[in-house]
Amino acid sequence: MQTKTVTIKLDKHCYDIIIGPNLIAQAALQIKHSLQQKDSHQTRLAIITDTNVASLHLETLQKEFTKNKIHTVPIVVETGEQSKSFSTLQNVIDKILSARLERGDCVIAFGGGVIGDLGGFAASIIRRGMNFIQMPTTLLAQIDSSVGGKTGINSKYGKNLIGTFYQPQCVIADTCILDTLPLREFRAGYAEMVKYGLINQPDFFAWLEKNAQEIFSNSPMRTEAIVRSCQFKADIVARDEYETGERALLNLGHTFGHMLETATTYDSNRLIHGEAVAIGMILAHQFSAQLNLINPALTDRIEKHLKAVGLPTQLKDIPGTLPDAETLMALISQDKKVSQDNLTFILTRGLGQSFIAKNVSPDAVLSFLEQKLAKIR
Amino acid sequence: MQTKTVTIKLDKHCYDIIIGPNLIAQAALQIKHSLQQKDSHQTRLAIITDTNVASLHLETLQKEFTKNKIHTVPIVVETGEQSKSFSTLQNVIDKILSARLERGDCVIAFGGGVIGDLGGFAASIIRRGMNFIQMPTTLLAQIDSSVGGKTGINSKYGKNLIGTFYQPQCVIADTCILDTLPLREFRAGYAEMVKYGLINQPDFFAWLEKNAQEIFSNSPMRTEAIVRSCQFKADIVARDEYETGERALLNLGHTFGHMLETATTYDSNRLIHGEAVAIGMILAHQFSAQLNLINPALTDRIEKHLKAVGLPTQLKDIPGTLPDAETLMALISQDKKVSQDNLTFILTRGLGQSFIAKNVSPDAVLSFLEQKLAKIR
Repeated sequence: MQTKTVTIKLDKHCYDIIIGPNLIAQAALQIKHSLQQKDSHQTRLAIITDTNVASLHLETLQKEFTKNKIHTVPIVVETGEQSKSFSTLQNVIDKILSARLERGDCVIAFGGGVIGDLGGFAASIIRRGMNFIQMPTTLLAQIDSSVGGKTGINSKYGKNLIGTFYQPQCVIADTCILDTLPLREFRAGYAEMVKYGLINQPDFFAWLEKNAQEIFSNSPMRTEAIVRSCQFKADIVARDEYETGERALLNLGHTFGHMLETATTYDSNRLIHGEAVAIGMILAHQFSAQLNLINPALTDRIEKHLKAVGLPTQLKDIPGTLPDAETLMALISQDKKVSQDNLTFILTRGLGQSFIAKNVSPDAVLSFLEQKLAKIR
Repeated sequence: MQTKTVTIKLDKHCYDIIIGPNLIAQAALQIKHSLQQKDSHQTRLAIITDTNVASLHLETLQKEFTKNKIHTVPIVVETGEQSKSFSTLQNVIDKILSARLERGDCVIAFGGGVIGDLGGFAASIIRRGMNFIQMPTTLLAQIDSSVGGKTGINSKYGKNLIGTFYQPQCVIADTCILDTLPLREFRAGYAEMVKYGLINQPDFFAWLEKNAQEIFSNSPMRTEAIVRSCQFKADIVARDEYETGERALLNLGHTFGHMLETATTYDSNRLIHGEAVAIGMILAHQFSAQLNLINPALTDRIEKHLKAVGLPTQLKDIPGTLPDAETLMALISQDKKVSQDNLTFILTRGLGQSFIAKNVSPDAVLSFLEQKLAKIR
């Protein structure tokens, strides 16, 4: 399977997502090309990565750059959500500034969603914006977080509350690197693929139902699924870069999902992001059914597929106890998608017929959560 | 003198700088207008200000908002450059998030350049960008830092190294508020007015020479000078929002100026920004003369005018001792305007004929600094 390219076309900026096997080995040339460099100019790269990815792949990547006479500054942070913090951000920035990297030099985010969010945010605010390249190493990052230019860190008041919109010069997604990904992480990324189908591509959902097994093994189908997912997200981002409209559809399953992540204190032993989204999508469909927007049988079909690939789908699948419904509601209200006192949810009218519901009654959500919790107590 | 408006026209965004006497009293209505609000929508405002401005004007401003049923969250930080720090930024952000302000709510920067830079940066990264309004209370902020969308904080590696480009919804410049400004601060702002003349408006420089006294007293001439300065800066920003070209001209006097500010550890007892720029502009002209670009008599004319209004113009005017030339050079090299090993300076070929010089030899600068320091030893 050869390399494929998805182009993101924004008002002022256009860039490629390059998807295919063994791209790490071509990264240096690709980056020189993306930064439109003359050979005479010696670019320096800061590689932001985490301890996991560093132990598996950093040496390979650095050798590639050294061979191409590119000076690199590796910056390794702890693996996990806790690195999306002010203190880690400040450390990363200090290291880049102390290495005297300039505006025309480049920050590479080499890792999953946490690294992409943290590295992109750092790149966007150092010297008011350095060059930036994403090299996502998880399925979730390849099909979702590396596409679209959202960056950020967490606050004690909620997830991703501090950040910027900042587009990279390019995204390089090596599909072979996913072979070193734990199965649980692969599944979590797969949940976001399913989400794209459920938003507005029923055919893609049906294609996933048929081909999931192929996608989980490293077949050309995997690359195809990544390309289709990136293309879908690229289209939405191109139409709504700053999330003033339809881009919010990408939050399908995320309002409930973030609620569950916060309720489980981002403890990856209990729940990781894609798992929370899987359960969140089922909750969004069940809530839509309760509002008589869809036939409950649709939820069953989706749940069946998510279960088939090993994803959790219900509150009872989360290890440990959850807080009560009032506490969960309070977590939703602090979510940044809240506008004044009306709750905004992504709901659905059928398979692949999601829509932005802006005036959801907090009481209806509370009573829905009470029902759901009652079932597991 | 009635209120005047200068409009900044950018590719994607257009906003007004409103300049005139007693604008605080109209701020609430103006802000409602700028945010294009329906009366039904209750906007909340975070007012970021410093202890000085708070003690003089915060109560007046808040009363105005209360009268107009606008809920305000005042956030008062320490006066001075040290507030452009990571820790103050984090405190400001925490206060805004804990008050549960949303994307559609608004941050007001009510103060001088420090407050504008800090408040604008916070607004730009909270929830990936909140509404933002500048209410500059110093001459420097009214004619320079509030115009053009640069925000930022300092790093131990240099000034303004961390920040964003972020445009406000509007700028409200109350010229009467300048009556409470210490004379030294007024002079420092005036230095940036002079800079606009020296960049490419020789007629404006001559007009300033003639009318400085009127501008220092609160006459209609002051408003006129502020309007002309804002118009000048607005034009440059409109042509080059992200400083990829001619906007760099605004750094006339700033490379030497930042060097002096760093050398004096931002100690306002020794030097404030506009004073550093005044000395920096004279150094830039003297250096241009040394490179045979201008007649030394031009520097004398400019120096005479700056002295006439009470501004420092020479290294010997800075209280205390300065480091040696090598140390000063090292400070210049860490400045963010440096691109690789070539130094970039704004030099001049005559009155109002400044240009961007990209290949200035570090040796020439070093020997120039050695000469200058020799004279004061």
